[in-house]
Amino acid sequence: MNIQSIRYRLGLICVLEALVLFLPFFLAVFFREGWSSYRAYLIPISILLLVAVLATRKKPKSEAFYAKEGFVFCALTWFVLAFGGAWPFVIQGSIPKFYDAFFEMASGFTTTGASILRDVEALPQSLLFWRSFSHLIGGMGVLVFAIAILSQGDNSSIHAIKAEVPGPSFGKLVSKMRDTARWLYLIYLAMMLGLLLILCLCGMSLFDACIYAFGTAGTGGFANYSDSLAHFHSPLIEWVIAFGMLLFGVNFNLYFLIVMRQGKKALRSEELRWYIGIVIAATVAICFLLAPRYTQLEPLLRDSFFTVATVISTTGFGTVDFAVWPLAARVILLFLMFTGACAGSTAGGFKIARVALLTKSAGSEVQRQIKPRHLRPTYFEGHHVTEKMISSVAHYFMLYTICFAVLVFLVSIDSPDIETAIGAVSATFNNIGPGLSAVGPTQNYADFTPFSKLCLSFGMIAGRLEILPVLIFFSPHTWKRV
Amino acid sequence: MNIQSIRYRLGLICVLEALVLFLPFFLAVFFREGWSSYRAYLIPISILLLVAVLATRKKPKSEAFYAKEGFVFCALTWFVLAFGGAWPFVIQGSIPKFYDAFFEMASGFTTTGASILRDVEALPQSLLFWRSFSHLIGGMGVLVFAIAILSQGDNSSIHAIKAEVPGPSFGKLVSKMRDTARWLYLIYLAMMLGLLLILCLCGMSLFDACIYAFGTAGTGGFANYSDSLAHFHSPLIEWVIAFGMLLFGVNFNLYFLIVMRQGKKALRSEELRWYIGIVIAATVAICFLLAPRYTQLEPLLRDSFFTVATVISTTGFGTVDFAVWPLAARVILLFLMFTGACAGSTAGGFKIARVALLTKSAGSEVQRQIKPRHLRPTYFEGHHVTEKMISSVAHYFMLYTICFAVLVFLVSIDSPDIETAIGAVSATFNNIGPGLSAVGPTQNYADFTPFSKLCLSFGMIAGRLEILPVLIFFSPHTWKRV
Repeated sequence: MNIQSIRYRLGLICVLEALVLFLPFFLAVFFREGWSSYRAYLIPISILLLVAVLATRKKPKSEAFYAKEGFVFCALTWFVLAFGGAWPFVIQGSIPKFYDAFFEMASGFTTTGASILRDVEALPQSLLFWRSFSHLIGGMGVLVFAIAILSQGDNSSIHAIKAEVPGPSFGKLVSKMRDTARWLYLIYLAMMLGLLLILCLCGMSLFDACIYAFGTAGTGGFANYSDSLAHFHSPLIEWVIAFGMLLFGVNFNLYFLIVMRQGKKALRSEELRWYIGIVIAATVAICFLLAPRYTQLEPLLRDSFFTVATVISTTGFGTVDFAVWPLAARVILLFLMFTGACAGSTAGGFKIARVALLTKSAGSEVQRQIKPRHLRPTYFEGHHVTEKMISSVAHYFMLYTICFAVLVFLVSIDSPDIETAIGAVSATFNNIGPGLSAVGPTQNYADFTPFSKLCLSFGMIAGRLEILPVLIFFSPHTWKRV
Repeated sequence: MNIQSIRYRLGLICVLEALVLFLPFFLAVFFREGWSSYRAYLIPISILLLVAVLATRKKPKSEAFYAKEGFVFCALTWFVLAFGGAWPFVIQGSIPKFYDAFFEMASGFTTTGASILRDVEALPQSLLFWRSFSHLIGGMGVLVFAIAILSQGDNSSIHAIKAEVPGPSFGKLVSKMRDTARWLYLIYLAMMLGLLLILCLCGMSLFDACIYAFGTAGTGGFANYSDSLAHFHSPLIEWVIAFGMLLFGVNFNLYFLIVMRQGKKALRSEELRWYIGIVIAATVAICFLLAPRYTQLEPLLRDSFFTVATVISTTGFGTVDFAVWPLAARVILLFLMFTGACAGSTAGGFKIARVALLTKSAGSEVQRQIKPRHLRPTYFEGHHVTEKMISSVAHYFMLYTICFAVLVFLVSIDSPDIETAIGAVSATFNNIGPGLSAVGPTQNYADFTPFSKLCLSFGMIAGRLEILPVLIFFSPHTWKRV
């Protein structure tokens, strides 16, 4: 393990976070929020820079940086970001307890959107901005994580998903990882700015539009009003955000293809078709179940579509309190929480590519039982599905299940009921935000004990990084000297 | 599809059920239960024999009977058994609605033990006997199903589990399937009679001992008192039943090995070690969580151990109301509901062999990420774990998840809350019996709508037959003419 190299790179992350923290600081100055706000940014910035200087003073002796180092670095990056980003809330006094602030920022950087704030409107503007801005940064981090780590090591077969997605084989199209990351950032930021513009045109103030554009781009879901999007009472805005969330749940490789003028290839993506199919099916089913409660078609359609979009893209903005919906509709939402959106997007969850791959392959298996002589191989995204792919997904499935079970057990130690425990873990581990029961769309995570909040924070980071980095970080094997 | 052959064999199943129904009939005569009871058996017996005569009049033209026919036959066998076995309850009047009686007998023959009866003591003795006797028959059916169907087709790779269990390769040790089945029946019945004897020695009446021995052998769980085993207030009986349930949750291949004087080989079984390990770990954890509520060690240990045994073996006998236990303890029980006991036993659930195989393999995968050069293959039960095995388990995992999700959705359409819906499906699909919330250990399934009861009945049969037969039965491909 090349600890020096990890230390050095984490130092750079500290510099990055310090620089980014200047943004809310300038905003605080602009809004004349007073000294309590200014020092809330200046103190963490100074400390981060000091730590960065100490960490980067010595260049690492060895350049060796393999998959193992990459995983540990990723896990630590999210911890460092959440740790550093939490201080402004504590110093300013909006969130007095550090574990609460850590939860809030872990939720921000992992683009989860789960909050412990009971009264979000009480926060100064600059802090609201910082909270939502973490979604944008988190989303960028996830995109580069997805390509840099997952597509790099050929041995990281747990994440074989990269092999299935119809994206360009990066090594050929763009020679260097850095270029690819730059392209993805450009697409991501351009889409975010486009959304920002549309929201402004729909009548939002620039500040509000920023908040909701950041939340949508990162599929995070932090809002600056306690009634989230319902605050605006604008059907147009709700439609715009709903489509926006769905677009940010699409595999970014497809946008890359479109930019590279291979749009036809992008549209042929099987994952995309499954994604659209699931969204339509779920919306229709929920419309059907909700129909008796509505008198007009447009609000029925809008509420159903928006909620499906917010859950499947694991964003978590709210327009209606789906906790009072019929049970069958809530069960559909529960399933969507687990499928999540496409691989290679900023969304969380198990990812549709994995669900589709396993379902198709299991379906072929059943067919083979009926017609043993009929040995047609299974294809996904134009590739022959190998047993290696299936077992990779199976390994991920198992790790996912075990982590989920452990988290539910830990949270259940001091939870009021089983629905809350399972709902909270589902909503954080899949990076959604609002869950079921006591963590439903109109509730928050304030009532959990510090221990549970810590567990859920870990769950958010583990879920965001698709488990493996966090698991490797905690494995004693990683730290053994050879 | 050789429908004639299936029809012929189902005719034989009808004869079998008619013959078996004479047992409760004789018991009714012995207890002088009167005409309402006598005709409750004589009418179904006559009809079953009539159907049997019609079905077996013509010998099938073709002897062809492949995996496809085998799966369809299995699915239909359980439907026919539950359908035929339900009539005595309807005719006698104890269960006026047919769908209720069908649920009860589907629960009996699948060795689930979920009941819709609010007052079980009101039933005549002969019907109580019939209800529990169905567990014994169901258990025998499962054992022969496990070897006859699962070990036959080499192409049925979804059930690759057979390849992992350390059982004798039946084709070599015993030349014919029929001989193997006979051996398993002998072991099964001998163990059941042994338990019966011990229960009598512990002070149970012969009738009660029969009921509980049948329920334990089939890992079913129907009782003849509404407070189940708590009725006897006998710690000794509880210990005996607890160990009995665990023994019937062991892979019967191991007993076969012991009978063949290869006991050492049996003890080396990895699945057995995982099974024992999980039981001990869960018992200790639950003892720890329950400790503040008990003043003495023996009842604490007994209640914890009994409940772990009843849940992991998917039996469902009750001695305590675990619905009032701390949430963390209930979460442990929820996990045990899904793991189930060993493959090749009468227990339901996902089976420990599958969980162990996936966990070991995922663990190796994580290790490989840390030490890429360290390419030691994974072994399970002394065999090299191939990607084919893993993908087989993955396919089963996916089918299991989809069926589970569909059932939860269907049941949620008219359930009071999500915990009840998930609890009911978990408890029936895994063939346990009592679940959580409104179907907890002191509750029953009476309040569900007919539609939900039907869905749950299907779930019990699908879960019992490890999904595939029921899926193939409902697949339109199966019935297509070539």
